[in-house]
Amino acid sequence: MPQSDTRFSFRVTHRDRGARAGEIGTPHGIIRTPAFAPVGTRGAVKGLTHRDVIGLGAQLVLANTYHLHLRPGARLVARAGGLHRFIGWDRPILTDSGGYQVFSLGARREIDEDGVWFRSHLDGSRQRLTPEGATDIQARLGSDIAMAFDECASYPVSEAQAAASMRRTLRWARRCRARFLEIGGDPASLQGEVTNPGQVQFGIVQGGVYDRLRACSARETVALGFEGYAIGGLSVGEPVDVMYEVAAGTAARLPDDRVRYLMGTGMPDDLVECVAAGIDLFDCVLPTRNARNGQLLTRGGPLSIKQARFAEDARPPDPGCACYTCRRYSRAYLRYLHVAGEMAGRTLNTLHNLHFYLDTMRRMREAIAFGTFDSFRRRFQETFSRRPRS
Amino acid sequence: MPQSDTRFSFRVTHRDRGARAGEIGTPHGIIRTPAFAPVGTRGAVKGLTHRDVIGLGAQLVLANTYHLHLRPGARLVARAGGLHRFIGWDRPILTDSGGYQVFSLGARREIDEDGVWFRSHLDGSRQRLTPEGATDIQARLGSDIAMAFDECASYPVSEAQAAASMRRTLRWARRCRARFLEIGGDPASLQGEVTNPGQVQFGIVQGGVYDRLRACSARETVALGFEGYAIGGLSVGEPVDVMYEVAAGTAARLPDDRVRYLMGTGMPDDLVECVAAGIDLFDCVLPTRNARNGQLLTRGGPLSIKQARFAEDARPPDPGCACYTCRRYSRAYLRYLHVAGEMAGRTLNTLHNLHFYLDTMRRMREAIAFGTFDSFRRRFQETFSRRPRS
Repeated sequence: MPQSDTRFSFRVTHRDRGARAGEIGTPHGIIRTPAFAPVGTRGAVKGLTHRDVIGLGAQLVLANTYHLHLRPGARLVARAGGLHRFIGWDRPILTDSGGYQVFSLGARREIDEDGVWFRSHLDGSRQRLTPEGATDIQARLGSDIAMAFDECASYPVSEAQAAASMRRTLRWARRCRARFLEIGGDPASLQGEVTNPGQVQFGIVQGGVYDRLRACSARETVALGFEGYAIGGLSVGEPVDVMYEVAAGTAARLPDDRVRYLMGTGMPDDLVECVAAGIDLFDCVLPTRNARNGQLLTRGGPLSIKQARFAEDARPPDPGCACYTCRRYSRAYLRYLHVAGEMAGRTLNTLHNLHFYLDTMRRMREAIAFGTFDSFRRRFQETFSRRPRS
Repeated sequence: MPQSDTRFSFRVTHRDRGARAGEIGTPHGIIRTPAFAPVGTRGAVKGLTHRDVIGLGAQLVLANTYHLHLRPGARLVARAGGLHRFIGWDRPILTDSGGYQVFSLGARREIDEDGVWFRSHLDGSRQRLTPEGATDIQARLGSDIAMAFDECASYPVSEAQAAASMRRTLRWARRCRARFLEIGGDPASLQGEVTNPGQVQFGIVQGGVYDRLRACSARETVALGFEGYAIGGLSVGEPVDVMYEVAAGTAARLPDDRVRYLMGTGMPDDLVECVAAGIDLFDCVLPTRNARNGQLLTRGGPLSIKQARFAEDARPPDPGCACYTCRRYSRAYLRYLHVAGEMAGRTLNTLHNLHFYLDTMRRMREAIAFGTFDSFRRRFQETFSRRPRS
């Protein structure tokens, strides 16, 4: 069975200057954009059950090829009928390619032209990941959106290093795409372990902070004809205004009729700025990871709940927030749970942070539809703070 | 304000041989008995948020005086308006007295006639708990049901040792009761830190496995006129048939018009047997603690989810179970979550185990009301297994 274009779709429904709202159709339902994907690295959003994630209004989750490859293994997942069935999540899933995780391993990996050798963080075993391998794993997992296997440069790097890395990403993108088309969504491929005939594949634009390289990467990646395009290699340490500039510059070079996905970003104000630049899709560990570390993100600024000054603070984390945590719990209780190491603290913090993110996305979709995105953006940036909340 | 008898009540609504169903009225709502209290040691049921606990049908939770005294401290809780407000739980709360926890500390405590010195498990600081102190702490916490401070003998102990421990528990019960009546639910008592004028106090019957001692303890404890009575010192290592015999023998010696609470018990079949003996109320860490350790309790026997044989088992933990976990998730996924150490695994296991317990209680209440408890009990014991599930 050929990969079915009728099952994946993307259309822009509203525009407001550079910002756009749209709908991604997938075999597991619609994603209204701009959208944020909570990160469920290992097939679960840490601290939550799927009920919670759905209740928050998440439209998709991101899972990690690298982690699922090591455990439980893509073939086991395929035998279970694919990742949706294995984890019991019936909405869209996006899988990253494992590239970012592997490159994060630092000394534990060796890169060559064919792929990457790395040591498993679980048992130290030597593992291989190649463009074809990462494509096969994702075909077995059966995510709705698979990502090409890329090389993510760190920051800062010289233009020459960024160029070399970008060119390798392009060569790997070609191999990923070829492999993806060869599999062709055919359930009989890969020993009958292809689990989602409607899977599509996104390419990743690299090139560091160098506009010339980004332009080249975008042009060459688009030439490969992916169903959507991601901007990788940002939010890796560069100043935030540089990030905005590169994201906007790259987004402008991507086709208007394809999804634009900014990987691994960011703070709530980053999302607003990048939606203004025409980004449709985001993922980031920030709301969930920071929640577990006791950092609540609010309109008025981050709130480090462990601080002693909250020990008797009866106010909710964010008095203006409608999430379950803010409706029911005090800073004093959340601080106590955090200090005591109670699981409920991590869960309640995660509920709040993800609500804030997903609610911001909802408000942006609404503002774009009403043609009021610019005033939303101005209001948001006037009242949102990155400084700790007093 | 005197402690108000109109706010706490207990009436038996149905009887079926020795089993009884009833209603406990508390300042925070009704508890239909027989009832099971999930354990929220530190003011949170581990792995769940209150929504989950309520959704499962829990009518009350148990919190621990010992833990809350050490952190965050009863005075802080009192200043927050009491435990209900501090933790955001508006249904009944029962607090144990700290006696059991302190005695579990072993070498870290010294007992004298006046009370107990112990070392905090948090920071090693030297702490004092006395009958009066434990009563004051609970008055500040403002639980609906407070417990007398008792000495819990271990198993096995000689009759002489059990007798000495039982007699000290009686002397302490007298002091607890005197202190409780002195406070009198008056919000102006204890520097204005009494937070629940409707709080009542239960006495605890001790005496080990010795019928003569249990009889004496029951008679003398009842003479002190508590609002309800607990059976302590069981499920501490004695054979299960001895536990049933002592529980039944002691229950029969408690007044028919007062709540009978069996502390710290037990497996699901224990609950059924003890309801048959006239017990109204239970608490136990077993469903929640075992869940976190990967043991799912099912009708067909416990299931140790970490076992490799479940790695590709697509069945729910218990095909006959209606809980969220069994409706949505496979053994394979739950095993994977457990092995990966994902929080969601602990949450999903806890949801299942507590559902099983609370559902068993619902079924018992219904059977007693219909006069079919005996056949329910027979059927339950025929189909329930303590042996690992195959």
